[in-house]
Amino acid sequence: MVDYRSMWTDLDLDLEKHDMLLQVLPSMYESTFLGQENRPEAMEYFDFVVGEIHGLRLKELMDHKASGGKVIGLYCVFVPEDLIMAAGAIPVGLCAGTQFSVPDAEEVLPRNTCALIKSSFGFKLGRTCPYVQASDLLIGETTCDGKKKMYEILAQYHPTYVMEVPQKKTPLGRELFLEELRGLKAKLEAESGVAITAERLAEATAVVEAKRRALQRLHDIRRARPVPISGLDALLVTQVSFYDDSVRFAEKVNALCEELEGRTARGEGAAPADASRILVSGSPMAIPNWKLHRILEDSGALVVGEESCTGTRYFSYLVAESDGSLDAQLGAIADRQLDTHCACFTPNDERIEDILTLARDWAVDGVVHYNLQFCHTFANEAVKVEKALAEENIPFLRIESDYSDEDMGQLKTRVDAFLEMIR
Amino acid sequence: MVDYRSMWTDLDLDLEKHDMLLQVLPSMYESTFLGQENRPEAMEYFDFVVGEIHGLRLKELMDHKASGGKVIGLYCVFVPEDLIMAAGAIPVGLCAGTQFSVPDAEEVLPRNTCALIKSSFGFKLGRTCPYVQASDLLIGETTCDGKKKMYEILAQYHPTYVMEVPQKKTPLGRELFLEELRGLKAKLEAESGVAITAERLAEATAVVEAKRRALQRLHDIRRARPVPISGLDALLVTQVSFYDDSVRFAEKVNALCEELEGRTARGEGAAPADASRILVSGSPMAIPNWKLHRILEDSGALVVGEESCTGTRYFSYLVAESDGSLDAQLGAIADRQLDTHCACFTPNDERIEDILTLARDWAVDGVVHYNLQFCHTFANEAVKVEKALAEENIPFLRIESDYSDEDMGQLKTRVDAFLEMIR
Repeated sequence: MVDYRSMWTDLDLDLEKHDMLLQVLPSMYESTFLGQENRPEAMEYFDFVVGEIHGLRLKELMDHKASGGKVIGLYCVFVPEDLIMAAGAIPVGLCAGTQFSVPDAEEVLPRNTCALIKSSFGFKLGRTCPYVQASDLLIGETTCDGKKKMYEILAQYHPTYVMEVPQKKTPLGRELFLEELRGLKAKLEAESGVAITAERLAEATAVVEAKRRALQRLHDIRRARPVPISGLDALLVTQVSFYDDSVRFAEKVNALCEELEGRTARGEGAAPADASRILVSGSPMAIPNWKLHRILEDSGALVVGEESCTGTRYFSYLVAESDGSLDAQLGAIADRQLDTHCACFTPNDERIEDILTLARDWAVDGVVHYNLQFCHTFANEAVKVEKALAEENIPFLRIESDYSDEDMGQLKTRVDAFLEMIR
Repeated sequence: MVDYRSMWTDLDLDLEKHDMLLQVLPSMYESTFLGQENRPEAMEYFDFVVGEIHGLRLKELMDHKASGGKVIGLYCVFVPEDLIMAAGAIPVGLCAGTQFSVPDAEEVLPRNTCALIKSSFGFKLGRTCPYVQASDLLIGETTCDGKKKMYEILAQYHPTYVMEVPQKKTPLGRELFLEELRGLKAKLEAESGVAITAERLAEATAVVEAKRRALQRLHDIRRARPVPISGLDALLVTQVSFYDDSVRFAEKVNALCEELEGRTARGEGAAPADASRILVSGSPMAIPNWKLHRILEDSGALVVGEESCTGTRYFSYLVAESDGSLDAQLGAIADRQLDTHCACFTPNDERIEDILTLARDWAVDGVVHYNLQFCHTFANEAVKVEKALAEENIPFLRIESDYSDEDMGQLKTRVDAFLEMIR
């Protein structure tokens, strides 16, 4: 095993604390993923990537920086990766999925903040995420009150740039967002010293969309009965997409899909064909937040889809054809981003339609709405989702949780009762 | 005493529940306000208005409706009252300040929602607020996630129209807001059948601003030592401004100010000259949310100002001169509204400046930051406010609370310790 300690020292990580984090992750990963029966062989790559989460991938980023490139950290699917890549920079999703960093955050942020925000902020405060340390700039957005205001505080610790996302889908909202993209483009150009040209942007968009198409392919494969891949593994693949190299990642996902298509042709599944098929919908799940999927699948169900920012809301949207000029491309990117069916918009009825469509086309037996505690937007939408599903007689369970383990027993009891009710 | 029951029946109030509410309020009011020593005589009017909160003022609204006028309900200082009045309609701030209606709301809304939102929503669900019942239309805005998404659910129970408020103060954000004002104007015209002309709007703006100037005058009077009016009474005056008739209200506030100026000339105060002078800053306080002021003043302090939407953020902003055309007036109203130093904006450093200015010019001994639990925007800003005040050595206390009485003892202990520390 390579020793990355000098790299981590250069990144000003708190080595002692970081060691504690790295001691927890592998056993957690092993018990969650490696015990699954009949795993696809192609998952080996993703196991490797997670094993090297603060190692080899970081090394790639540091090499990129050493050769003059920039690394740009982000938190949200509204920040367009292709615009960042067109500036010769590498976009990375930042660490945000563990209780480990929450206590650090709670020394500064309000405690009634969602675990994802606290976790990411705590990683910066505690200097335990090499990705944020390696980032030349962090790009935030205004998609929720918690993040919007956290970024103001984060900016006191790390260079941060915030772009506005409108709240209603109006023509002027689109204009505003397009102008924000132009502002982001200028910021990225100033940061990187690279001019974003039409050619560079088209190339970057093609890379990002190849990745998204690969994830769409995987998503479609999960319609099969039996499902050839567990929900845990499929979720992991999407989670890895936020920090792995995009080109390599797409290749590996396509290789996985080929294996899975073969399995489906042979009628092989990750679980029996009669396992309850669950759609998880709601707040995103950052690595290593596998709690709900694990409880569901340990109890014999199989998660067939994530209507989430670590799921359909990340990979469903592609740009429309444009005349190829830079401004037309930016407009198409604005449209692609604003098409995201996120609870930050009012209204956001398209999301309800998405859930109903997924429930039907993925032959779902029940929908579990996952809400990070204190996330107002999704918590309120859950009320509308519940109503819409009741009208279609689709079983529904509302889960609110954080990153602690304290509610594991209670969650398991509720999930078991729900699965019992479905069967 | 007039019997308003037939009016309440016409408004489809839940009479039994409403009776329970009306049984609680008078004794609460009496114990909070009427026991204060040396009250200004002119407060008698405001006592009367509160006593008739669901009676005489409602009767005026119903008479207005009977003669063909409209009543428009609103929740937030970003909705311009003058635009509503220019359509011949009466704007009213909706009931939102009591624990009484919270349990109703919690049957639908997420519990982790701020008390103000739950209270107002619960008033609609439980049919206990005659103002919302009398409203032909409710106007919401996108100033926080909780309200933004609550309005979607509220719209299932009452006609609701939502206008967008931008999150960054950019030129395009201003354009977007101006376009939202134009949309609101069209909506109000369609609802009322009255064309909003430049003349009507100028007249309405003059009425609204006369009210604001009266409140500014009262605010300025509180710089005196001793302060001639208690914080409780001054807060009440601002609270009443949201539902009383604007012209009459301004007259009564000016009459109060005359009395207070006389007191100051004679060196008379509502409390001894050496009482600790406190600025309250943060979330708004709707009637009957007098909890924090009462605790502070019962403990011997005097509240000299509210940096709040039921305080300076309501009355500090006036329109700039314009050429008088309708569009120029709308632009000036857009600027006035967007000048509001609300935590919904990122960044919102002007608010920190306001607090520092108030602390200096009102000779404040300490600042109490009041945060409704689960309000992300103000909770995060409290972190910045605390830092800014620490740099100026201004004592600071952060309070987070809801509408229940459960934390009264704890709050009193903390407030007493804070006041002890100041003295």
